Amino acid sequence: MPKILSVNAGSSSLKFKLYAMPAEDVVISGLVDRIGHSDCIFTYEYQGTKHKSVQAVQNHTEAVQLVTDALLDSGAIRDKSEIVGIGHRVAHGGRDYTQSTEITPVVQQKIDELSDMSPLHNPVNLLGIEAFEKLLPDAREVAVFDTSFHSTIPSKAYMYALPFEYYEKYGIRRYGFHGQSHQYIYSEVNRRYDRDFSRKIISCHLGNGASVCAIKDGKSVNTSMGFTPLAGLVMGTRSGDVDPNILPFLAEKEDLSAADVRQILNHKSGLLGLSGVSNDVRDVLKAEADGNKRAELALQVYVHQIQTYIAAYTADLGGLQTLVFTAGVGEHSAPIRERVCAALGYLGVKIDADANQDNDLDISAADSRVKVLVIPTNEELVIARETEKVLDS
Amino acid sequence: MPKILSVNAGSSSLKFKLYAMPAEDVVISGLVDRIGHSDCIFTYEYQGTKHKSVQAVQNHTEAVQLVTDALLDSGAIRDKSEIVGIGHRVAHGGRDYTQSTEITPVVQQKIDELSDMSPLHNPVNLLGIEAFEKLLPDAREVAVFDTSFHSTIPSKAYMYALPFEYYEKYGIRRYGFHGQSHQYIYSEVNRRYDRDFSRKIISCHLGNGASVCAIKDGKSVNTSMGFTPLAGLVMGTRSGDVDPNILPFLAEKEDLSAADVRQILNHKSGLLGLSGVSNDVRDVLKAEADGNKRAELALQVYVHQIQTYIAAYTADLGGLQTLVFTAGVGEHSAPIRERVCAALGYLGVKIDADANQDNDLDISAADSRVKVLVIPTNEELVIARETEKVLDS
Repeated sequence: MPKILSVNAGSSSLKFKLYAMPAEDVVISGLVDRIGHSDCIFTYEYQGTKHKSVQAVQNHTEAVQLVTDALLDSGAIRDKSEIVGIGHRVAHGGRDYTQSTEITPVVQQKIDELSDMSPLHNPVNLLGIEAFEKLLPDAREVAVFDTSFHSTIPSKAYMYALPFEYYEKYGIRRYGFHGQSHQYIYSEVNRRYDRDFSRKIISCHLGNGASVCAIKDGKSVNTSMGFTPLAGLVMGTRSGDVDPNILPFLAEKEDLSAADVRQILNHKSGLLGLSGVSNDVRDVLKAEADGNKRAELALQVYVHQIQTYIAAYTADLGGLQTLVFTAGVGEHSAPIRERVCAALGYLGVKIDADANQDNDLDISAADSRVKVLVIPTNEELVIARETEKVLDS
Repeated sequence: MPKILSVNAGSSSLKFKLYAMPAEDVVISGLVDRIGHSDCIFTYEYQGTKHKSVQAVQNHTEAVQLVTDALLDSGAIRDKSEIVGIGHRVAHGGRDYTQSTEITPVVQQKIDELSDMSPLHNPVNLLGIEAFEKLLPDAREVAVFDTSFHSTIPSKAYMYALPFEYYEKYGIRRYGFHGQSHQYIYSEVNRRYDRDFSRKIISCHLGNGASVCAIKDGKSVNTSMGFTPLAGLVMGTRSGDVDPNILPFLAEKEDLSAADVRQILNHKSGLLGLSGVSNDVRDVLKAEADGNKRAELALQVYVHQIQTYIAAYTADLGGLQTLVFTAGVGEHSAPIRERVCAALGYLGVKIDADANQDNDLDISAADSRVKVLVIPTNEELVIARETEKVLDS
């Protein structure tokens, strides 16, 4: 069976999963973490056995060398040529890429240009692409953009009420992110349930980054992240929405540059900034249990903002059939799911306490009018599927 | 009967209404417009007759002189001492003023300090206060803050997920504005309808400035304006919500200062910026009818954002009983009300086309589960009531 490699390159990490397609069987998966350090950790799992090693890894090219060596040494592949396609997660596709696309020099240049809008992610996504190009030159590479799934959002929801020239000159509009995750959630709901539950879905991707997506008949019609992944929900260290006037106010009061303000809103805000405890929901929940009032407040704001977006998106959908929680917090935090749903009874949302506690797939109460689901996300699989689709077309 | 003067001082205007209390009869009302110009227009209405004059008015003190002369010359009062209280609309009360308060030198200083957060409004509100102090020194003055009605918003909705120190140091939080208007809307719904329609109200104040307020059991529990009146809905020239990262992005791309960015978001955005036509909904509707595509887009974004907030606030209320439209656009624009309500059928909102066309008080269809009302706002009356309450206490 042809094999497709899913790659998700972060600033200091490289995640990969090799799929045998079209069966979607995972052959081998792993992670190179702490790239750029002398104690980089490389873990992978093959045929049920986990492997771990620690070594110096200078850059993404060395990380990819580790990965390709492991693919061969483990026996996952006998020859590099077995890998027909490599799908790369790319954060920002801008206005140009409304679909996944095969990578060419022109596409690489475009991804580089789009770094303007995604300075944290596009450059490292590109490093991953270049490294695999060197080491697996015969495999075709595909870019799978975070933003593509949201290309169906109508202009009434993606335009900001700013001078129109900024849309024309810089492409300032809502793009949305976490596209692979929300797309996967839709595919799972659609696979498991009939039309009564799959036409009006709200997907809550709650990880360290977090976004809500309204999915109507399989298409994203609104999402809480915007021009960049800062907007919308309260996140680990990101503020989510704030009154825009706060930025010039703070800049003047604290004598900050534009870059300083961006740094504060992206890296020192969110759960961390409010609670003073941590960017991790688990730590903040623990602090709250220990009587920390700021931790309690941070969680109340965090939960309220999720409720606000779920409620808002019922207007985009004209109602709600299915509410899904996914990603780290969404999949594992029963108290967060419980608190979020507590204010949504008026929409017909009612969860079963035991099922919620157990992180069951279906946590709806028997008399809930809305299906409430917990679905582990699988962005890698969407990347592999998209890659296969592009290579087959 | 004791008379109370309601005053609303803007940067180049001064609106006033004299009430006989507690009957709430309007004795005389008027407006000084284009203060600072040689062709300032002064209009007032007394006993059904309208008066108009044009003259040079240098500043707010001269404007107040005009007003006090007219009060006496018209016969509305025979002696200045008949005016027992003057209520001033003051935009920003910050964290200090959760209620209307009698004006003292300390309060004046505080209003001045709060100009930081409300640079466009607090300073001119203060000019009005000082001018009346000189010319009607025996009347007691009361400050009625735009923000006070929103002091009941819970912390989960008023806190931003920013570093907590900014809340402590600068009081950065959601305050909300248009408090007198939303308070008046509640009082009218409560006066006219029973509890089945007055416990869960969403009030849409749609003027050149615009905000939505969720009112639960008479108390504001959330509102779309924030730290300043920029946040929330698309307005005449204000952007409303945008991804905060857009500000440093624009600052760097266009080499703008913090003040430049603020200027663009507050004065060159909104309906004007998007449509390129006008900040006035009527003009944009007309351009749309003439086939202007950007006007059409601007209105779609404008309407969608109102729908988003109405839907979002149903979570704060746990449902919706009554939806109210008020202020210039809300009271007079049947097409905007119709478009807003078109997406809200899932909440039980259904309007009667004829009643809507006629700007009737109750525009709900017979089978609407939500009462939909058009109520002309009356901020001046709330200012008079609040002033009476403070002086009586």
